[in-house]
This record gives sequence, C-alpha cells and structure tokens, in this order.
Amino acid sequence: MPFVTISLLKGRPEAYVKAIADGVNAAVIDTMGFPEDDRYQVIHQCEPSCLEYQDRQAERVMMHLVMRSGRSDDAKKAFYARVVETLAHNPGIDPGNVFITITENNDIDWSFGDGIAQFCTA
Amino acid sequence: MPFVTISLLKGRPEAYVKAIADGVNAAVIDTMGFPEDDRYQVIHQCEPSCLEYQDRQAERVMMHLVMRSGRSDDAKKAFYARVVETLAHNPGIDPGNVFITITENNDIDWSFGDGIAQFCTA
Amino acid sequence: MPFVTISLLKGRPEAYVKAIADGVNAAVIDTMGFPEDDRYQVIHQCEPSCLEYQDRQAERVMMHLVMRSGRSDDAKKAFYARVVETLAHNPGIDPGNVFITITENNDIDWSFGDGIAQFCTA
Repeated sequence: MPFVTISLLKGRPEAYVKAIADGVNAAVIDTMGFPEDDRYQVIHQCEPSCLEYQDRQAERVMMHLVMRSGRSDDAKKAFYARVVETLAHNPGIDPGNVFITITENNDIDWSFGDGIAQFCTA
Repeated sequence: MPFVTISLLKGRPEAYVKAIADGVNAAVIDTMGFPEDDRYQVIHQCEPSCLEYQDRQAERVMMHLVMRSGRSDDAKKAFYARVVETLAHNPGIDPGNVFITITENNDIDWSFGDGIAQFCTA
Repeated sequence: MPFVTISLLKGRPEAYVKAIADGVNAAVIDTMGFPEDDRYQVIHQCEPSCLEYQDRQAERVMMHLVMRSGRSDDAKKAFYARVVETLAHNPGIDPGNVFITITENNDIDWSFGDGIAQFCTA
C-alpha cells in the first residue's frame, strides 16, 4: 500500500531510474509485508540544486512514504537497511546518500481505485 | 484547506490538466465542507515510467491530500466517490485508475499566507 | 531534520530558486532549533496552472514540511513569520503568497543515510 514519492537527479538513463524505482518497491514488499502488486510510486527527476541533501553532490535519492500505521519499528529498520543495500547494488548509490522518511495514516485514508475506501468496506 | 498534490501523465493538453485539477477541487469543496475558495494544489506532470500505479498503463491519476483531522469517514468516502465520478466525466479517466491517500494534521500546522497560523489566532 | 518540499513557479533565475531554498532553510534552522546542517529539501518548479493557490497569479510559494512531533506551537508560529519575512526580502515574494503546511511523524520514521534509523539506535 505505501504511496512512495522518490526524488532523484534528472538526466539519468531510464535504466537508472527504473533500478531505483524497482529496488525501492522490492524493499517495500520484502521487508514490510505488503502484497506483491502493492506498487504506488511517483518519481521526480530534479536538478541538482533542487535536491538539497545537506552538502551531498553525488548521486542521491530522497524518498517519502505514506502508509497505514501498524508496521513495527523492526520492519521499518529492515526496510531502511534493504533499500540502501539494494540501491548500492543497482544502480550504485552510496548508502550514505539515501534519505527516507515515513508518515502514517489510517484505514479510511486510502482509495486504490473505483472511488472506494477499500480498507473500510463492510 | 486541503493541500492537494496531484500526479498525472505529462504531455496531455492544458484542458485535460485543468479538468483534473478543477474536478478534484470541486469534489473537495462539495463533499468535505470546505469554503468555496479553499484551493491549494500542486500538479505534477510525470513520464509514464514515473507514475507507477501497479501495472496500469492507461490514463491515471494519483493524489495525496494533507488536511486537518476532523473530517468524518463518510465525508472521505463521499469525496473518493465524487472524484472518480467527476474525472470519469471529464477528462474521461477510468474510475479504476484514480488513486487517493490522505494524511492529517492539526490547527497549528497551517499558514495560508502572511506568516500567520490562521487557525490559531487568539 | 525536516523534509521540506517547496513548489514555486518555473522559469525563474537560479538565484531566485536558491534564495527561496536558502531562505526557507535558514528559517527552519533559526526558529525551530534544528542543527545547522539539517537541510533536506526537494524543490519543484511548476507551470502557473500547476500551482493553484486560490486565485493568486503573482509569484507564489507553497511548501510542505514533514518533521518529528515535538516542536511547540510557538516555534511553528515563529517559523511561519520568519519564512515570509525572509522571502519578502529575497527574492521579494509577497508575504500573502506563501503557503505552508506541516505533517508530523515519529523517531522511527527517519533514516538520514546508511539505512539506519538514526533517532532509534540503542
């Protein structure tokens, strides 16, 4: 379910963008117990001056997840660790250059299509 | 009040973008009891590969609302239903291809201009 | 720590964008007690029709902060006031045209790099 907004540097090859998007998605599914097809992502490709991550200049990724409350602290920690491991492997982002933050909401706050609150149907 | 971020496919006509933005705004006002002029929206036009909504390839819209807590479950359900109905009519988005999530905050978390927390003035 | 998403009009000079990003960051640090290097920002440059702020047509800025709960109401009010003062000075944004909203989360919801939840290490 998470709605994931990923910001990365623009001008990179399509395979680079796809590796990041796929890698983050795989980490979400594998570590936090979401269904296989639970993919909801928006990717922003930003100029370097529009992706301010302290003083980092190298390849970097900043992401924000919105998800239902209920995931354990351990699941979140496992997710953080898996994301940087995955992105280090492909496309080769330094683990020190991956920023993640999460905000949580409730069952009623989701509609996955058809105008229905899928978590709140009787 | 809601702050609405809308992500849709790039390269569409201006009228398409406007229909979505206007339609979402009308649904917000009509179903959740906000004032007529309560419009705060950022629209992102994304490449198809940057708007990942499971395996959907057709026209699709993903949106995230930030708003004060207090709206009822019924109001949220009415909003979801109205949005897909409106966007199906114009510009013709399949109701199955509209994703919505909401996160809530509090009175102190809003400044609508002039550097003032308008909900928290004595 | 805050993760700040700033949306402004596209086609403006680099110095304009930098003034806004730097100004918001300085306000964050000065008024809410964050460390000097606590800068995490994504800036979106939007077409006028994609930055809907009631009926404003002039230069305008809309921002969303995600941060840990714990900042006082007074700190938030000071932040709002400082941001508009700073942006009025440079690059000259009307204080009436600056929109701010905040959502809060918890210690576990942050990883600033290396796949670690820095606020939750034993």
